[in-house]
Amino acid sequence: MHEKLNEFKQIMAEIADLNTAASVLGWDQQVNMPSGGTEARGNHLATLGKFTHELFTSEKVGKLLEELSSDASALGPDDAAMVRVAKRDYDKETRVPGEFIAEMAMVSAHAHEAWFEARAKSDFSIFRPNLEKIVEMTRQYVQFFPPADHPYDTLLDNFEPGMKTADVQAIFNALRPRQVQLIKKIAAAKQVNNAFLHKKYSEKKLWDFGVDVVTQYGYDWSRGRQDKAAHPFETTFSINDVRITTRFEKNNPIAMLFSTMHESGHAMYEQGVNIEYERTPLQRGASLAVHESQSRMWENLVGRSLPFWEHFYPRLKKIFPAQLDGVSLRNFYKGINKVEPSLIRVNADEATYNLHIMLRLELEIGMVEGRISVKDLPEIWNAKMQDYLGVVPPNDALGVLQDIHWSGGMIGYFSTYALGNLVSAQLWEKINKDIPDLDEQFRKGKFDSLLGWLRENVHRHGRKYDPQDLVQRVTGSKITAEPYVRYLTAKYSDIYGL
Amino acid sequence: MHEKLNEFKQIMAEIADLNTAASVLGWDQQVNMPSGGTEARGNHLATLGKFTHELFTSEKVGKLLEELSSDASALGPDDAAMVRVAKRDYDKETRVPGEFIAEMAMVSAHAHEAWFEARAKSDFSIFRPNLEKIVEMTRQYVQFFPPADHPYDTLLDNFEPGMKTADVQAIFNALRPRQVQLIKKIAAAKQVNNAFLHKKYSEKKLWDFGVDVVTQYGYDWSRGRQDKAAHPFETTFSINDVRITTRFEKNNPIAMLFSTMHESGHAMYEQGVNIEYERTPLQRGASLAVHESQSRMWENLVGRSLPFWEHFYPRLKKIFPAQLDGVSLRNFYKGINKVEPSLIRVNADEATYNLHIMLRLELEIGMVEGRISVKDLPEIWNAKMQDYLGVVPPNDALGVLQDIHWSGGMIGYFSTYALGNLVSAQLWEKINKDIPDLDEQFRKGKFDSLLGWLRENVHRHGRKYDPQDLVQRVTGSKITAEPYVRYLTAKYSDIYGL
Repeated sequence: MHEKLNEFKQIMAEIADLNTAASVLGWDQQVNMPSGGTEARGNHLATLGKFTHELFTSEKVGKLLEELSSDASALGPDDAAMVRVAKRDYDKETRVPGEFIAEMAMVSAHAHEAWFEARAKSDFSIFRPNLEKIVEMTRQYVQFFPPADHPYDTLLDNFEPGMKTADVQAIFNALRPRQVQLIKKIAAAKQVNNAFLHKKYSEKKLWDFGVDVVTQYGYDWSRGRQDKAAHPFETTFSINDVRITTRFEKNNPIAMLFSTMHESGHAMYEQGVNIEYERTPLQRGASLAVHESQSRMWENLVGRSLPFWEHFYPRLKKIFPAQLDGVSLRNFYKGINKVEPSLIRVNADEATYNLHIMLRLELEIGMVEGRISVKDLPEIWNAKMQDYLGVVPPNDALGVLQDIHWSGGMIGYFSTYALGNLVSAQLWEKINKDIPDLDEQFRKGKFDSLLGWLRENVHRHGRKYDPQDLVQRVTGSKITAEPYVRYLTAKYSDIYGL
Repeated sequence: MHEKLNEFKQIMAEIADLNTAASVLGWDQQVNMPSGGTEARGNHLATLGKFTHELFTSEKVGKLLEELSSDASALGPDDAAMVRVAKRDYDKETRVPGEFIAEMAMVSAHAHEAWFEARAKSDFSIFRPNLEKIVEMTRQYVQFFPPADHPYDTLLDNFEPGMKTADVQAIFNALRPRQVQLIKKIAAAKQVNNAFLHKKYSEKKLWDFGVDVVTQYGYDWSRGRQDKAAHPFETTFSINDVRITTRFEKNNPIAMLFSTMHESGHAMYEQGVNIEYERTPLQRGASLAVHESQSRMWENLVGRSLPFWEHFYPRLKKIFPAQLDGVSLRNFYKGINKVEPSLIRVNADEATYNLHIMLRLELEIGMVEGRISVKDLPEIWNAKMQDYLGVVPPNDALGVLQDIHWSGGMIGYFSTYALGNLVSAQLWEKINKDIPDLDEQFRKGKFDSLLGWLRENVHRHGRKYDPQDLVQRVTGSKITAEPYVRYLTAKYSDIYGL
């Protein structure tokens, strides 16, 4: 048994190494690679993927997993979790035939190109046949798995292990009317002014300020770095090498600061995983939602809070005296928290963001069930935008074509963004119970108690617990919308005087 | 046959991909990686190395190579060269037992640490037992191969395929007395003044100037990039992604400029390989010497020439008016070509460099033959320095401990540096015959004829020809010292008025 466990761990470590190599190549592609390298890099990644897949889905691994899990009670809790998590991954990776995976990769590659063109031309008809194929293949994909309560469960499980469609629907159904109601109240109140955010800001100075902030957060630069990329992301090469990227948008300069905070939240999670899990299936975060809870927490619950800016605003004002001239702390705080129903998800504020997600989830479920045809998507999209947010896209580029996910065959992903928001608030209530003077600490620029709490309760566990179990374990209840509603209501009642 | 060839090429392509992945990880380690990532990166590279080795030395590859090479006449010339080159690599990689390789890796790792400490403390006795072990293992290594004319041939062949110890000795024996004589003459002449090189120069401005120079050379930035690293190097991820690094040394700022030129020479070689050779055993340069001939050519024969600076000096002077105030073009040219026998190889000028190499070659051959004991190295080193260069290291850090190579088990490497110098001058004579107005072109800042010539005659062939065959093919003779002696004599007779 001991020998088998060691053999299993050795193979898992090698798989982790190969996956990491692919991550480094992917990071390089987005951060450094000259344009000429594109084709070759595709080959490198395909070859690495092939070897990793062959190794992981080998009979040897299957047999080891069978034997180890049949005698799981003989394993320690960490080892048992490793075997359980790896077995789930193995099951997913072996159920779907290689030819299907290859075809999906091909279909996605073409769909991605078509989506890119369709969005540029704001012409859904260019993307439509590709998306139809992707939906068809997604429905086939589900058939490779045992029947679930709902076919969408199989897809959701790839991003949020153990989560059921019915659970998400129940959570969102509780949340939707209350968020819609809140937005209506805000719309009726006096709007805040954030014109100062759209002045000219020095990229270099904002970069440096962002670096200072996340250094104070506790992001460990001896085990990470920040680079520029077209899209901000976090990537992990080791618990001791977790990197982030950010970007500067001329027409929205301050976004860079919040992007750095956001990615540092992901990165501190990965830096905080138990070092014993390095090169094992338990390395990395529990799920996309739990990951997003960390990034959203450091970006929003900390980084858009008043106590945070009580500490940092004087410094920011010193760096940008002209841009922030005459802007009081309170008005700055209001400005960075302005609520305004808008068309684009990635630019949405905290109060409206989840509604963008709910819309997508409903469309995805409808397509997977076969109730919604791809051809009707633009119309349904626009109708739901009117319903939830009171705004209607003037064209498909600003509507149904805005997200990259579907073109890559990623159906089942979106809800994790909203769930992440909910989890962040749910953890936040518990944290504030455990650390009653948290605001006071922020006012002094101290974040080590918060990071320490997250390390202890969330980070160190890596993938050991399924997300719902982890949230239950830490907060006493599974994922629920209540804390987020309470958080939003309190925050915006203050800002908008509701 | 056709099917076998395709199968062979497919496996070779995958091996190239895995090797490239390791190169990207290696580049990242030297350019970007935070210190925390070191241990994990060692694991990633070890795992990649293991899979690459297993794949390449598999029975399948052995059988394919056997079959393809037994019917080589049925192959086209490129395919035949691919099989020949791969078979040589395969032979080298399969003759040496895995346990020996693993032991050597371990011994080298310890030797590297010991060397580092020994150099820091300038105490050879710390490194001595490690080097003794390395020499012993190197002698064992040779035993895995069929007897050659000289045991050192086996080692040399790893870096300079097809080259014999006796050939190198004959070349160096012809060269040594003439270089020693030249240096003596220079020592008797009036020394040139290069004080202006040691003023304060802006790193950023020198970087930009270097970028301008190699852009004019023809280094293709859409297929490359430059970064900073502790040691300058060139690395290839694809014929369309060839990167270089450089470094800034405060006490020798202008060195950065020549380092950029040097590495661009390596890089333009790799960018110029026939694109059909991508992901095959023929990608990359023919040998270390041929590679060094390219880097040295762009650094020295072009970059330290008078016509080059007739074009670039006015621009440099405009950028650094204070530093170069009162320094004429001719005095600048003399200054960057100052000859001064010195202790450290990597800082040596063109006239003395090869003598550093010859010293090392003689010691290596002596150790491999068993004539020279490791314990006697410092003494012999110092005696030879006195003989060849007229200077004696005051301590071992500035003498026998200065190079990293032996600590890594790299015995057989050094002579390729000097051979590269010789090849650069040998090619140069032919180039000047074929392009008689080369100097005039340089004066106008035009380098495309030179690069075109190198592409056509050297670069595009990749590893297709063995180095001696390539040089013979292009210049009509195998590697010889005469052109280099003529080059040095002409250049320094002018500079020093000999």
